[in-house]
Amino acid sequence: MKRSIKLKKLLDNYQQGWSLEQPFYLDNDVFNAELDAIWKKYWLFAGTIADIPKPGDYFTYKVHNDSIIIIRGNKGEVFAHYNTCRHRGSLICLEEKGRAPKLVCPYHQWVYDKDGSLVNARLMPDDFDKSEHGLHPVKVEVTGGFIFISLSDNPPDFRKVADDYFPFLAPYKLENAKVAFKKSYELRTNWKLVAENFRECYHCGPAHPEYCSAVIGANMKESAAEVLQERKVEWERSGLAVNNVEFENDSFHFAIRYPLRPGVLSYSTDGTAVAIPMGDHKDYNAGVLGLVVLPNFWMDAVSDYMWTMRVTPMGPSKTMIDLAWLVDKNAIEGEHYTLEHLTEFWKITGEQDWKLCENNFAGIESSRYQPGPYAPIEIDVVKFVDWYLNRMRDGVLEAASAS
Amino acid sequence: MKRSIKLKKLLDNYQQGWSLEQPFYLDNDVFNAELDAIWKKYWLFAGTIADIPKPGDYFTYKVHNDSIIIIRGNKGEVFAHYNTCRHRGSLICLEEKGRAPKLVCPYHQWVYDKDGSLVNARLMPDDFDKSEHGLHPVKVEVTGGFIFISLSDNPPDFRKVADDYFPFLAPYKLENAKVAFKKSYELRTNWKLVAENFRECYHCGPAHPEYCSAVIGANMKESAAEVLQERKVEWERSGLAVNNVEFENDSFHFAIRYPLRPGVLSYSTDGTAVAIPMGDHKDYNAGVLGLVVLPNFWMDAVSDYMWTMRVTPMGPSKTMIDLAWLVDKNAIEGEHYTLEHLTEFWKITGEQDWKLCENNFAGIESSRYQPGPYAPIEIDVVKFVDWYLNRMRDGVLEAASAS
Amino acid sequence: MKRSIKLKKLLDNYQQGWSLEQPFYLDNDVFNAELDAIWKKYWLFAGTIADIPKPGDYFTYKVHNDSIIIIRGNKGEVFAHYNTCRHRGSLICLEEKGRAPKLVCPYHQWVYDKDGSLVNARLMPDDFDKSEHGLHPVKVEVTGGFIFISLSDNPPDFRKVADDYFPFLAPYKLENAKVAFKKSYELRTNWKLVAENFRECYHCGPAHPEYCSAVIGANMKESAAEVLQERKVEWERSGLAVNNVEFENDSFHFAIRYPLRPGVLSYSTDGTAVAIPMGDHKDYNAGVLGLVVLPNFWMDAVSDYMWTMRVTPMGPSKTMIDLAWLVDKNAIEGEHYTLEHLTEFWKITGEQDWKLCENNFAGIESSRYQPGPYAPIEIDVVKFVDWYLNRMRDGVLEAASAS
Repeated sequence: MKRSIKLKKLLDNYQQGWSLEQPFYLDNDVFNAELDAIWKKYWLFAGTIADIPKPGDYFTYKVHNDSIIIIRGNKGEVFAHYNTCRHRGSLICLEEKGRAPKLVCPYHQWVYDKDGSLVNARLMPDDFDKSEHGLHPVKVEVTGGFIFISLSDNPPDFRKVADDYFPFLAPYKLENAKVAFKKSYELRTNWKLVAENFRECYHCGPAHPEYCSAVIGANMKESAAEVLQERKVEWERSGLAVNNVEFENDSFHFAIRYPLRPGVLSYSTDGTAVAIPMGDHKDYNAGVLGLVVLPNFWMDAVSDYMWTMRVTPMGPSKTMIDLAWLVDKNAIEGEHYTLEHLTEFWKITGEQDWKLCENNFAGIESSRYQPGPYAPIEIDVVKFVDWYLNRMRDGVLEAASAS
Repeated sequence: MKRSIKLKKLLDNYQQGWSLEQPFYLDNDVFNAELDAIWKKYWLFAGTIADIPKPGDYFTYKVHNDSIIIIRGNKGEVFAHYNTCRHRGSLICLEEKGRAPKLVCPYHQWVYDKDGSLVNARLMPDDFDKSEHGLHPVKVEVTGGFIFISLSDNPPDFRKVADDYFPFLAPYKLENAKVAFKKSYELRTNWKLVAENFRECYHCGPAHPEYCSAVIGANMKESAAEVLQERKVEWERSGLAVNNVEFENDSFHFAIRYPLRPGVLSYSTDGTAVAIPMGDHKDYNAGVLGLVVLPNFWMDAVSDYMWTMRVTPMGPSKTMIDLAWLVDKNAIEGEHYTLEHLTEFWKITGEQDWKLCENNFAGIESSRYQPGPYAPIEIDVVKFVDWYLNRMRDGVLEAASAS
Repeated sequence: MKRSIKLKKLLDNYQQGWSLEQPFYLDNDVFNAELDAIWKKYWLFAGTIADIPKPGDYFTYKVHNDSIIIIRGNKGEVFAHYNTCRHRGSLICLEEKGRAPKLVCPYHQWVYDKDGSLVNARLMPDDFDKSEHGLHPVKVEVTGGFIFISLSDNPPDFRKVADDYFPFLAPYKLENAKVAFKKSYELRTNWKLVAENFRECYHCGPAHPEYCSAVIGANMKESAAEVLQERKVEWERSGLAVNNVEFENDSFHFAIRYPLRPGVLSYSTDGTAVAIPMGDHKDYNAGVLGLVVLPNFWMDAVSDYMWTMRVTPMGPSKTMIDLAWLVDKNAIEGEHYTLEHLTEFWKITGEQDWKLCENNFAGIESSRYQPGPYAPIEIDVVKFVDWYLNRMRDGVLEAASAS
């Protein structure tokens, strides 16, 4: 009960429109409550089908203490399992990615099928029931080639996300995409500070010159309205989805299409295209497709590449960032694109943000830190914080009714 | 009381024949209870007299927070002391090994004799009683040259271990042995997973090709019975001890002699001898002498060398492994043996095991880890677990009666 | 209440004249109580005006979780602020030192004046009250160019320190001094063991040959009385302050002037001068001026340089040491001094001490550590411990009356 009383008090004390109190960023009890109320309940972006194009291709995703195996089945379906053998608990897949016709535990060679069922356990007694010892399953949803998992047995309904996202993602044809580059960062910050950072452009003008040179209005000094109006007509003509999806009520996903600055073809430091158009795209006029699925997924796609960001908390003060850059499978490195040109825009912009997020955390550690007022322009941060607090309130209620 | 209630519940819930529940491997309260019930009560292997052949030779052994000085006395006796000065607590011996006619604290030069008595404390007042300020003693037992210590004032009786081991160890003549090589490893695993690993060969076939090539039956595909029968006759003829010692009731030691594969002379990757026979051994026919003293000692000796393993927990997730290779004092490096040939068998085999133990731990960290059934062939692991649980149950009872 | 009961018991159990019990050095609750009773209440040496000679020059000082900005104002005054933006808490100054006409938060560019007042917060609503959002102030006192801060709103009176120190420090003319060198160390020890180490010379003879060669009597084998008598007359003739300040009652500062060994001109390994005399000093006859302000400041000044030591605890087992060497502004490196000659005396002596303090801590971690008797010659350590315990007793009383 003690943890829940502390949480309830913190939640009750929150002043709408102001940043969160210190314990939300530093306290271990709050972090553990977040694991229950959010991270082990909601849908988490794991990767894309381009990570595992063939049957038996797998990758692992570590969410706090849980390593998850995501593996492609024989018919192209995607399975996810807890990476812990049902014999004595060993990790089964030791690498971040690989290919395996069967999942064989390296300790005593128990053999599991791609769907997680135990198919062989040598030297076990005759009455041992293999059907009782399959890998613990993890729920999976795939939409437009994007793989989401939930560590809950009873996660929120994913249908609306799938329905809303499909028209946006279909033209990218993820089944014909490839992962061109990946990069990971370990940040000394709280995951919510990354989420807050990526929900406002109050900081963009001074902090992100490269980003502002590509996106009209990001500097908060220009209006993007006119350009948007023009482009929207074009996008509709080209058959591109334009119905933005806002966060509302208790939803947890978001989609927006917005224009690049006129003359800018891609998210690149020089404004030129970085690769051939992806999937069904014929030109470089798709603008930017921005997706967010709380709590861990951000994506920005332009006509010629997709950039995905996966945010994973390892503790109150430690957050992993995993970035991926996807291009069309037909794009040939050296001929159609170079890794430097493809990746430098988001490497530069991302690394600017990691520093801001780490500085933000270090300042919040001060004994005199106190919540400050969000600027009007930070309204989407307020919405994120409200969403977060409502999830935490639900979590407190659930914990109370469970005990 | 809270810790003991948690422990009691865990102990009561244990399902015989299954692996332990997660808290036994991860929880700090369990770990602290283990310190009391096992590590600060039972006998711990520290090293051998070959580590400290001459008066004043010493080495230090760090057991959790306690550094222990083990020092050879003037008559060859072995003393052990807590490495903390009775003045202001400083460490006295700063190195892992050395030689000292007296133990002098490096801070204010209080001087202790090898037996721990304070012999000089400069500038202390006349009424200062040196006899009240000797080093805190640690109990010591030596059998066949093997040094065991206990951090308890009232440790279990060691006599049976000494009696059982002496005939096995005497032919090795430890007083004429030397330490040829030492190597330490810090593992991210729980100490019990190392203990479990070293009590079963269910994993040996696929994991240890080198080991299986030296030991008949280790692959679980052959019978060693016939070869054992033949060799036993030879061993008895040669005067070698053959009365294996099983764990029984509340005992904590074990001894076995078993044959090498015919044609294999030593624990080496090529099956050839690695050094001259040790002590009284005249040939390479002694097979393997395997000793275990719970909780921290494993030894495998062949005719020409001894390999000792000391396991020391530094926390639930951190375990130190200290290996030593001993050969006859008359064996000359470069002439009778090379370090590579001597050590590669157990370096390779040990490092295979460290990986398995670390993977096992990492998988047990999963929120979905649950105890699994030991295979019938893992019966000795079950015995270890039962021994462990009984010690923990005794510890809970003792703590209850003490409070 | 639980923490305070534990503390009260520990404080009540203390045996006068003996070293502290283990929890005083290792326990997190004790450490947190120290933060409240001492570190966030008393005056802490931060640096000197020679660190920030010009308006806008600043440095940061990290005290446990709090980063503090110390900045020079336009009129030469010194301000100190908590380094956390009033908007969303980000660190404002990211570097250890720098120069800034205004303090601009790197996240969203809120702009603060040197005195901490918020002068600009772009895009905030019209009714936003800047005067309510200045940086949280930290109290500052400067005496003789030495900057002390207090994290308390109600710190002890500093006047007596200022009055007592001014005559000692005035001749050094800090406004004409420069910082020649700085060096920091992170020690695995408790801060009180550093404080104890620097209050006794029981260890000096064997541990500090260089120090003993410069200071008569430090080896505890000679008397300094005669030399002191002679020099005192000279010092008074030269107008140098000679009225030593002892710790008394609840005071927290100390000053002493004592002679160097005849023929020794400076704290140097060869006894020669290392630089030109500082400030008003005309020769090398000032002896040593030693200052201590508990809990974090030690200084030893000779005629030609000052050496300051700042001690900062980051946890029970982690202590930062920051050293600075100051010389006259007119001293030219290469011509009047070399860094090696200037710094080697205290680098050598300090590093000898860090090892002693770390060994002391490591030995106190033993489960068998128990308080030992201080030697009569360690009387000043006893005084420090008594001062410390009284502060902690006051803290327990205050915490009780506050709850």
